[in-house]
Amino acid sequence: MAAIMSDFESMWRELAPVGRSATTGGYFRTPWTAAERECVGWFREQASARGLSVETDAVGNMIAWWRVSTDATTAPAGSTTTTTAKGVLTGSHLDSVLDGGAFDGPLGVVSAFAAIDLIRERGVTPAKPIGIALFREEEGSRFGLPCLGSRLATGATTWEQATQLRDRDGVWFLDAVDAVDADEPVGVALEHGDDQATLDLHGTVGCFVELHVEQGRDLVDRGVPVGVASSILPHGRYRFDFVGEANHAGTTRMEDRRDPMLTYAMTVLAANKQARTSGQRATFGRIDVRPNGTNAVPSAVTAWLDARADSSERLERLVAGVERLAEDRAGRDGTTLTVAAESVSGDVVFDVELAQRIVARDDGGPAWPVIPTMAGHDAGVLSAAGIPTAMLFVRNPSGISHSPAEHAESADCLAGVEALADTLERLAT
Amino acid sequence: MAAIMSDFESMWRELAPVGRSATTGGYFRTPWTAAERECVGWFREQASARGLSVETDAVGNMIAWWRVSTDATTAPAGSTTTTTAKGVLTGSHLDSVLDGGAFDGPLGVVSAFAAIDLIRERGVTPAKPIGIALFREEEGSRFGLPCLGSRLATGATTWEQATQLRDRDGVWFLDAVDAVDADEPVGVALEHGDDQATLDLHGTVGCFVELHVEQGRDLVDRGVPVGVASSILPHGRYRFDFVGEANHAGTTRMEDRRDPMLTYAMTVLAANKQARTSGQRATFGRIDVRPNGTNAVPSAVTAWLDARADSSERLERLVAGVERLAEDRAGRDGTTLTVAAESVSGDVVFDVELAQRIVARDDGGPAWPVIPTMAGHDAGVLSAAGIPTAMLFVRNPSGISHSPAEHAESADCLAGVEALADTLERLAT
Repeated sequence: MAAIMSDFESMWRELAPVGRSATTGGYFRTPWTAAERECVGWFREQASARGLSVETDAVGNMIAWWRVSTDATTAPAGSTTTTTAKGVLTGSHLDSVLDGGAFDGPLGVVSAFAAIDLIRERGVTPAKPIGIALFREEEGSRFGLPCLGSRLATGATTWEQATQLRDRDGVWFLDAVDAVDADEPVGVALEHGDDQATLDLHGTVGCFVELHVEQGRDLVDRGVPVGVASSILPHGRYRFDFVGEANHAGTTRMEDRRDPMLTYAMTVLAANKQARTSGQRATFGRIDVRPNGTNAVPSAVTAWLDARADSSERLERLVAGVERLAEDRAGRDGTTLTVAAESVSGDVVFDVELAQRIVARDDGGPAWPVIPTMAGHDAGVLSAAGIPTAMLFVRNPSGISHSPAEHAESADCLAGVEALADTLERLAT
Repeated sequence: MAAIMSDFESMWRELAPVGRSATTGGYFRTPWTAAERECVGWFREQASARGLSVETDAVGNMIAWWRVSTDATTAPAGSTTTTTAKGVLTGSHLDSVLDGGAFDGPLGVVSAFAAIDLIRERGVTPAKPIGIALFREEEGSRFGLPCLGSRLATGATTWEQATQLRDRDGVWFLDAVDAVDADEPVGVALEHGDDQATLDLHGTVGCFVELHVEQGRDLVDRGVPVGVASSILPHGRYRFDFVGEANHAGTTRMEDRRDPMLTYAMTVLAANKQARTSGQRATFGRIDVRPNGTNAVPSAVTAWLDARADSSERLERLVAGVERLAEDRAGRDGTTLTVAAESVSGDVVFDVELAQRIVARDDGGPAWPVIPTMAGHDAGVLSAAGIPTAMLFVRNPSGISHSPAEHAESADCLAGVEALADTLERLAT
């Protein structure tokens, strides 16, 4: 295992400086920008060094395949055939939230390469191909739609819908993608029905196992380094547009104002209270104020509610409750409110049989606990698309994620690599 | 008067498109950017067309002087002397808040040129010079310090202090100024003690009269087009830094969070309530959230409080009250709060004698009402520097200001030009 540890740490060191802020120590690996492209280049190098063949789609989602050429005993003497069984896919993403941590995404990719190295070290030859996926824009930090890459790869989001997306600077999705990755423009590739434009997930992937740092403290409480996900709970992003009237902050009487910041402020507190009392989650972490000047009452405030609940019905009730309180306040403030659901994901229950195969180890090793999560993942998208899917979580001592403080201990990362290698080996043979 | 009306409207049309947003109809004349520079170029052209001589200081504050060369009866025969009496200064600013209106600032400058035209049309030769001032960064929309230009011109802000200022994009004050206006770098000019680097306000200006659109509805209630300011009430800008801890918006339990957005939201509502109950003004119109991502609890929120009150003591009490409530909430949210006063201006009482000379008209015309304002102006800075100062306000039908909806009727603007011409004529003869 010492070799794998050194292997893992060497990959980790290579990625560590890419897109890191000197000020905060956090990561800004925004999709299709220089930092994230550097991560993608690193991915290609790792694949190439291991003799894996890389497939890419039009937006730069990739799978690095380990396909073992076997002398099939049933084949004519002297010929070799490449196995055509559906493969076992692992991997994750390399993009980050703004000022995010080092582990969310990269841990799954680095562990995947290390797991293949460990399987090879064990001298095991898998019967089925093993692939390492790299999905783009998992966090939705640029175009606002989480799991955009895997959604496009599975068809959960159509190309037509993606062409409507713009980032905060007004850059269109296709322009952002064209600028960096594609050999030919995405629009052209799709128009020509180019085979290279899409990954054939359903045709080539038998099952998907994503390893991820835990984003909570369940495994800390249980005292184990690795867990298996049972489900991803329902979650959504909702844009709240509060519109009032700009005016002079000094001369306008308080009673003459139509200040959308007041409606926003009450909505933030209402969302927090609703989530607390119902045992769910609600967050306003992003805001855009116009004109955003000190001496002007704002004309408009746009803010995004991130809401999560343990059932779709409770999620709807939570958001409706916040919206009702916000509307009431808007009426008193003389402002107006429009709410748009930008993305809503229902409950994802991962493949129970697959999870049991991972948990119930033949060798008498520890049985990993099965836990749910409130975080969305590409695994949820592949699962919803009908691909049998499982997730492995690695313990996070503080539970902190989406923050420079995100962490996992080296010993736990290594336990994750071992668990992933065991799982891939079992599923591929 | 028809000629002056046409003169006024022609100038207004020239300025109308400069820095105007096609989306909102509002103005973005941010100091030392292309749009505001175009306004400054327009000012130079207007001065040149009227034979006025323009003085400029190192940051681009300007005075366009109308100095009448008179054959002094006491001077030797054949010689002409330029009058050396201190002049009567009018004028205002051409920068705007972000997404501001057309009138705040430009009305005072355009009316000043029109007033000089009207005085000339009347065939009056003033005994004292009449100057039209253009002060830069009155709104504080770029470097956060309102009346920055006039503060530098009077010494209320030192050059040393100004060199510490940066705009939202991190551009240093001197770099912004150097890039556009100065013949030699500001730093060099100041180091050399260059006379051209400063305007000699105390040496050349006997009194200052600024005309401005009213930013409230006092004149509407009184049914008159023009008023005279008695005072500018105390006001200040305070930066509130709320610091918490970034975390995952989905997986972090509500009770484990240290969310600075909650502390901010409560502070916004507290400031509003404090101002309402005490009859003062408090506004949070500008915010900066880090990292400002939908699926992350923010690590920090910075927001600016604009507060105004009818006495310095009440202003202090208002801000202290908001701060105390914010601190209480920070304690409950597990966040920390730091408050810094970025600029605080005490009560400015304008020159009573000067105001009376403006109000009490010899010709039996209407006596303009005398009213206070909660808006800051360059006139307040010059007054605080010991220059006898007065302000004329022009009626604003809705009272709205710092907004694309800011307005004044043409007839009222013309009444303003007449009132200003009468005032300048009286003071300069």
